Amino acid sequence: MAKKKFIYFFGGGKAEGNGKMKELLGGKGAGLAEMTNIGLPVPAGFTITTEVCDYYYRHNRTYPPGFDKELSRNITRLERLVGKRFGDPDDPLLVSVRSGAARSMPGMMETILNLGLNDVSVEGLSKKTTNRRFALDAYRRFIVMYGSTAKGVPRERFEEEFNDIKERRTKVRLRRSTVFDTDVNEEELEELIPILKKVYKDHTGEEFPNDPGEQLRGAIDAVIRSWMAEKAVTYRKVEKITGLKGTAVNIVQMVFGNMGDNSGTGVCFTRDPSTGENTFYGDLLMNAQGEDVVAGIRTPIHLKDLERIMPKVYRQLCQVRKKLERHYRDMQDIEFTIEEGKLYILQTRAGKRSPRASFKIAVDMVKERLITREEAILRITDKDIEGLFYPVIDPSIPKEELKKYFFAAGIGAVPGAASGRVVFTAKDAEEWTARGERVVLVRKETSPEDVGGMHAAKGILTATGGKTSHAAVVARGWGKCCVVGCEDLNIDYEGKTMKVGNTVIKEGDEITLNGSTGEVFRTALRLIDPELPPAYDTLMKWADRVRVLKVRTNVDTPYDAENAVRLGAEGIGLCRTEHMFFDTDERRIAIQRMILAENEGTRKEALEELLPFQKRDFMGIFRAMDGKPVTIRLLDPPLHEFVPHTEDEQKHLAQMLGMPFHQVKRNISRLHETNPMLGHRGCRLCITYPEILDTQVRAIMEAACECKKKGIKVLPEIMLPLIMDAKELGILAQRTREVAERVMKEQGVRVKYSVGTMIEVPRAALLADRIGRIAEFFSFGTNDLTQMTLGMSRDDAGRFLPEYVDEKKAGILKTDPFQSLDQEGVGLLIKMAVQKGRKANPSLKIGICGEHGGDPASVEFCQRNDFDYVSCSPFRVPIARLAAAQAQIRWPRKR
Amino acid sequence: MAKKKFIYFFGGGKAEGNGKMKELLGGKGAGLAEMTNIGLPVPAGFTITTEVCDYYYRHNRTYPPGFDKELSRNITRLERLVGKRFGDPDDPLLVSVRSGAARSMPGMMETILNLGLNDVSVEGLSKKTTNRRFALDAYRRFIVMYGSTAKGVPRERFEEEFNDIKERRTKVRLRRSTVFDTDVNEEELEELIPILKKVYKDHTGEEFPNDPGEQLRGAIDAVIRSWMAEKAVTYRKVEKITGLKGTAVNIVQMVFGNMGDNSGTGVCFTRDPSTGENTFYGDLLMNAQGEDVVAGIRTPIHLKDLERIMPKVYRQLCQVRKKLERHYRDMQDIEFTIEEGKLYILQTRAGKRSPRASFKIAVDMVKERLITREEAILRITDKDIEGLFYPVIDPSIPKEELKKYFFAAGIGAVPGAASGRVVFTAKDAEEWTARGERVVLVRKETSPEDVGGMHAAKGILTATGGKTSHAAVVARGWGKCCVVGCEDLNIDYEGKTMKVGNTVIKEGDEITLNGSTGEVFRTALRLIDPELPPAYDTLMKWADRVRVLKVRTNVDTPYDAENAVRLGAEGIGLCRTEHMFFDTDERRIAIQRMILAENEGTRKEALEELLPFQKRDFMGIFRAMDGKPVTIRLLDPPLHEFVPHTEDEQKHLAQMLGMPFHQVKRNISRLHETNPMLGHRGCRLCITYPEILDTQVRAIMEAACECKKKGIKVLPEIMLPLIMDAKELGILAQRTREVAERVMKEQGVRVKYSVGTMIEVPRAALLADRIGRIAEFFSFGTNDLTQMTLGMSRDDAGRFLPEYVDEKKAGILKTDPFQSLDQEGVGLLIKMAVQKGRKANPSLKIGICGEHGGDPASVEFCQRNDFDYVSCSPFRVPIARLAAAQAQIRWPRKR
Repeated sequence: MAKKKFIYFFGGGKAEGNGKMKELLGGKGAGLAEMTNIGLPVPAGFTITTEVCDYYYRHNRTYPPGFDKELSRNITRLERLVGKRFGDPDDPLLVSVRSGAARSMPGMMETILNLGLNDVSVEGLSKKTTNRRFALDAYRRFIVMYGSTAKGVPRERFEEEFNDIKERRTKVRLRRSTVFDTDVNEEELEELIPILKKVYKDHTGEEFPNDPGEQLRGAIDAVIRSWMAEKAVTYRKVEKITGLKGTAVNIVQMVFGNMGDNSGTGVCFTRDPSTGENTFYGDLLMNAQGEDVVAGIRTPIHLKDLERIMPKVYRQLCQVRKKLERHYRDMQDIEFTIEEGKLYILQTRAGKRSPRASFKIAVDMVKERLITREEAILRITDKDIEGLFYPVIDPSIPKEELKKYFFAAGIGAVPGAASGRVVFTAKDAEEWTARGERVVLVRKETSPEDVGGMHAAKGILTATGGKTSHAAVVARGWGKCCVVGCEDLNIDYEGKTMKVGNTVIKEGDEITLNGSTGEVFRTALRLIDPELPPAYDTLMKWADRVRVLKVRTNVDTPYDAENAVRLGAEGIGLCRTEHMFFDTDERRIAIQRMILAENEGTRKEALEELLPFQKRDFMGIFRAMDGKPVTIRLLDPPLHEFVPHTEDEQKHLAQMLGMPFHQVKRNISRLHETNPMLGHRGCRLCITYPEILDTQVRAIMEAACECKKKGIKVLPEIMLPLIMDAKELGILAQRTREVAERVMKEQGVRVKYSVGTMIEVPRAALLADRIGRIAEFFSFGTNDLTQMTLGMSRDDAGRFLPEYVDEKKAGILKTDPFQSLDQEGVGLLIKMAVQKGRKANPSLKIGICGEHGGDPASVEFCQRNDFDYVSCSPFRVPIARLAAAQAQIRWPRKR
Repeated sequence: MAKKKFIYFFGGGKAEGNGKMKELLGGKGAGLAEMTNIGLPVPAGFTITTEVCDYYYRHNRTYPPGFDKELSRNITRLERLVGKRFGDPDDPLLVSVRSGAARSMPGMMETILNLGLNDVSVEGLSKKTTNRRFALDAYRRFIVMYGSTAKGVPRERFEEEFNDIKERRTKVRLRRSTVFDTDVNEEELEELIPILKKVYKDHTGEEFPNDPGEQLRGAIDAVIRSWMAEKAVTYRKVEKITGLKGTAVNIVQMVFGNMGDNSGTGVCFTRDPSTGENTFYGDLLMNAQGEDVVAGIRTPIHLKDLERIMPKVYRQLCQVRKKLERHYRDMQDIEFTIEEGKLYILQTRAGKRSPRASFKIAVDMVKERLITREEAILRITDKDIEGLFYPVIDPSIPKEELKKYFFAAGIGAVPGAASGRVVFTAKDAEEWTARGERVVLVRKETSPEDVGGMHAAKGILTATGGKTSHAAVVARGWGKCCVVGCEDLNIDYEGKTMKVGNTVIKEGDEITLNGSTGEVFRTALRLIDPELPPAYDTLMKWADRVRVLKVRTNVDTPYDAENAVRLGAEGIGLCRTEHMFFDTDERRIAIQRMILAENEGTRKEALEELLPFQKRDFMGIFRAMDGKPVTIRLLDPPLHEFVPHTEDEQKHLAQMLGMPFHQVKRNISRLHETNPMLGHRGCRLCITYPEILDTQVRAIMEAACECKKKGIKVLPEIMLPLIMDAKELGILAQRTREVAERVMKEQGVRVKYSVGTMIEVPRAALLADRIGRIAEFFSFGTNDLTQMTLGMSRDDAGRFLPEYVDEKKAGILKTDPFQSLDQEGVGLLIKMAVQKGRKANPSLKIGICGEHGGDPASVEFCQRNDFDYVSCSPFRVPIARLAAAQAQIRWPRKR
């Protein structure tokens, strides 16, 4: 049996390991080996395998026989290769020591830098850098890191001594009340070092090790012991990580960019991270260390200047760039250091980029044959698409300015930004907009009555509610900037002001909302408008060709329908009929008359009045969709949402309707419900008042017939909400078909239509086999299905849901179940319903029309469960198209 | 092949068919054959088989060859046997014709009586009965029945003519503005008959058939055709009745009790239906027909008088009594007619009986070895038990008196009756009761704050809410008479009055509630108090020996616990901790202080205050239950249920708490929720405020430890409500166990306890495998589980649920899902959860603690799904015990 190898060396252009040996070398060690192998000038070093860690714990905390020798051999090899020696008084070898398992894992030991420094070698570093203060400071840091990280000395103990020096010496010398670490000078550091060593000795009972070999053994020990640290063990338990052997230990040569004018350090991107252009882009500081770059005291020079100063190094860097893109097939973010004219690549990783750049790089790389179209599609995220569509606050505005105007923070419900004058009523929003103002509507909360004003406003701000409150849901449908749940806001409707603490904003004052972060600013900040780059069109075309899942949209008006088609919608998955009733005063009064009717007769009359409005809307929508399927949901919300609740408004309504006030008041109070979400709404309205169904179906079918006669293609799908029983659906579907047939007979034309149901009540999902025999399609209403399955009202969840999704607190749910489908719970119910439904009726068409239809993880769920389509708000249509393509690549399905 | 037999004769002591031939002879035909076979003097007749009907529809609506001959033969046989002939001018044979399939089925033809009458035979009937008016009226009825039922002449057409005679002749003759059918005399009937025959001819185009044979063929035709009547076909479709051949036709000799003084008609019971005594009991009218008994004009004589008048007939009847009880092994309700000294048994069926009689008869019959104990158990219904326990309005109060005092009708939520003086506030109810008044508490709706007053009152009446409203649920727990949803009620709290229309009831006026019917009377009616008969104890002992399912109870106080144990409870399945906080002002203030606390510190202080109260309650309950398991649910309702909502009350509270009013108001308004059922409640309170859990667990465990030290056995089971996730339960169960261990250490004693969860959120049921790994028991909270699974708030369902359960309207649900478990939907979820839970944890204890635990059908469901126990309100414990025994008999399970 061959002897086991415990240490893998890398450096000088080749490595003993490679990128595939993650299990043995850990992620970091395998990466260093890989970079070395592809010829990058990586600092040399070696990796102690995970098997050593495994052996250590299996053998009563001892190292395998022969390990010491192998370690010595590798140290010698490293010294030879880099031409430096541990503890050298002129040019000492310094190394970093890092842990690294096959999977990244919090709770294990972090980096120890500058290992190898001692009272002798610190002078060597000082000579090489001609900066004694730097060398002493590096030594100080090493003592603290080694003491605290490897030996468990409380970091505060070191800090106390450092602070003492600062107080006693630095402050006195500078005669300032505040001093920084960087103010401490050479002498003061020289005084500090023996003090720190004493702290070390007091705590550990041992002298601080001067021998770099001993330092190294201590650091290796510390890394291996950290594998069993409580935090790391807990993490593996919680995340169910099993089967790992242990951690590897990486020992790597330290390099310094502050060794003189032929040294430097920098960061570069293989392509422009903000435009995506295929140009080399980067900054560096000459004669400087990483810390100097972070401190931002000196201004960096550009990469092209390096070409002038050190053309050889620049050419080498260009080769690295090419090599890295070839190898990793993605734009890279590279950290490098030049030590005395020698280039070292310290790290490379996929570079962060702007949304525009994401598209440009993905599409360009396909053209350059670096990646396939499928890979390009997988590289784009939903955030990339969002970033292209919404206006944003000009990123060049300095942070201090933002801070100065900061007013309050709520929950960012719809991304993007908006600015305008504050108004406090929907009516004002409409009127001010009509006279040319840009306004932001501010409300405690919004209701369906506010929809007109919400539409008119540039942005919406509410004091209450979460991401799925009325305001958020409606605004999301339009892609309109919206901040909700801004709880510090004190709104005074009568005084027309809002206050946070003592800061008051009055009607007409300008504010800006950041819908991505939830911030509110008390001025009109500069916004940058969105513009779609050509790469977007190319990539989305590819995505459309790949995907199988259809993408529809949730819209209620012809205007929104047209917009959604432009964004790629292939049909309407949810057309809510209730919003139509708030469009004008005329309509509002008609629906209110219907609701307050005291008998079937007057109710029917009021419904007759509404019919032409609805019909006109449906015709507009059919025209806009031009033959694409249009799913129309019959009236869904509880009726009290349509009527006013203040006495004044009720009095006004009584006058308008010619009804006694007390009667209006009484009828409205009768509509009150304890839990309206679970009340008299949805198809239950049609069971108790079948004339509501009759009128709506008539309006849909008359519109469809008239469109067809005009040569417009139509494909209406009539959808019944809140179904919980097969017999219930049977009764209503039959009535729907009877009305439809009657209308077609009257109109003398036949139109293809279908009748289906939302699945949004858990019972409907459980009985999907019976319901599937009657329905022609299922559309999962995952908003309500989530509320009912979790027993969680989205309007009220704000007080406890944050704790549930916050990993640092209870962390019970992985994500907000109203944002991304709860696949474990609700998903199980949906799976069951799909299987039962399709078994009973193989031709059942299945879609989703909840908020989740535009969430990539939920779209993937739909792909895997054989849905026919997803439907989402227009502004999420592109995201859903992309997600559907990605899902098809990951979970291919037959077309 | 033997020739098929189409007609089965019965009469003269023997029948060609028997009771098992339901498929061939229909239920009715088989019953008639059976009665004949066991030697009862049943009128003779014959049954045409269902195969004839089948043949008819398979052969283009024709009768099988040979059928006519067989029919003639049977008519002749019948004429010979009874000694009468069709159409005889002196003593005609008359028959009834009835349909009858193997299963009873609405929509088919009903009875035609007196077939065989014509212008000649009517005179024969007149002679025999010496009552020409009777004979003519029978003829009139026959023409109408035959015309409308068999030939489809609109019944109104006949009615119009009858009314015309009444208007034109009877009214004029009697000089009265109102006349009844019985006022029409012989001459007027004589005039009417040719007119009715003309109506018949005008509609059918044929003369009314004079030939009884032709009449009979017409009636047979009509019965067979009614098999395919739309209503019957729909019924079979809806009820999924398939595999039936068709309907049979029963032709039976008519007998008359008005043929002179040796004739008569009556009804008797084989035992006393009100006491259950084994004595023969009955009434009869001599020389009278069934109609005369119904009309109630003449006073009937008792059975013992018959012994004197017609001793032979009486002895025969006694033999019938014995024979019937032997044969049917149950108390029978017998209809008989004596025609000229000859006894005919027209019908026998299991007799309706009072609750006391039910128990007495069942127990007696076991002693008489007529039935087994199991059969005795199966004979008792939940209504029988209810009837024993609740006071009722004296049934001897005449209907007119009830009518006179009728005030309003609501929904009967808890059966029984109550009377007392009206009060409108819970406080008044307590105060008036304290000074010795009997009161009925009247509220628009009740809330937890009213519980004290509700308990003090004799009965509760609310204007809103359904059977599962707060008032109904709380009252049911106490078995206290309660009427809810009395929507006509106009309550004026300030004026202390309630009105229905113009009738006003003031505070202090007496009313009576009938909790079974929902009626409200505006006086104090006489009530009869319940008393348990000895047979009850005997039968319940048998039931307890039989059943496997344990029966627990839902109670919150030591007093109720003791009561429940007396009623047979074997543990507490649900002890709600929230009601404890309303017991006194002191407690109320403490919980309110806790809720309005602005930080953890003050919240903890307030909780400390509550701890001793809770502990005292728990000790009382443990003492009452003496070692029986006690499941205690941690705080469940949303916090706003504990605080006042009017400005005055809030001001008062602010004073009591020493907090500024605006702060109290703001903090309370922050508690407002849109859908409180799905809000911040249940275990969510413990996730956000873990100190609530700590205090409650501490109170439970301190109480348990102290009890144990005093020698009282304790078995606490700590239950977490509204769990929806395994991790959520894991966090809370761990914290619960930590607190419990800490308390036991402090107290120096160990107590056996367990930690489990309610399954009331659909997600918890779906993920029962994961949750089952952590919980030691599941208790299905079917109230909330039903609300969430059906998406139906029980507080709001009143506006549509009646339509859903009303068979005459939509008829979507078979029963109110809040009364009896929705086995199709919610049941499916429960089944799944039980299977998953037990698979993950075979020792999982499973129970139910929703309202359904006391519903017999739901108890059977629990038996079939391997539950360990059911838990219900104390007053339903006996019902559950019985239902559990019945379920074990029907669906035996291993012990």
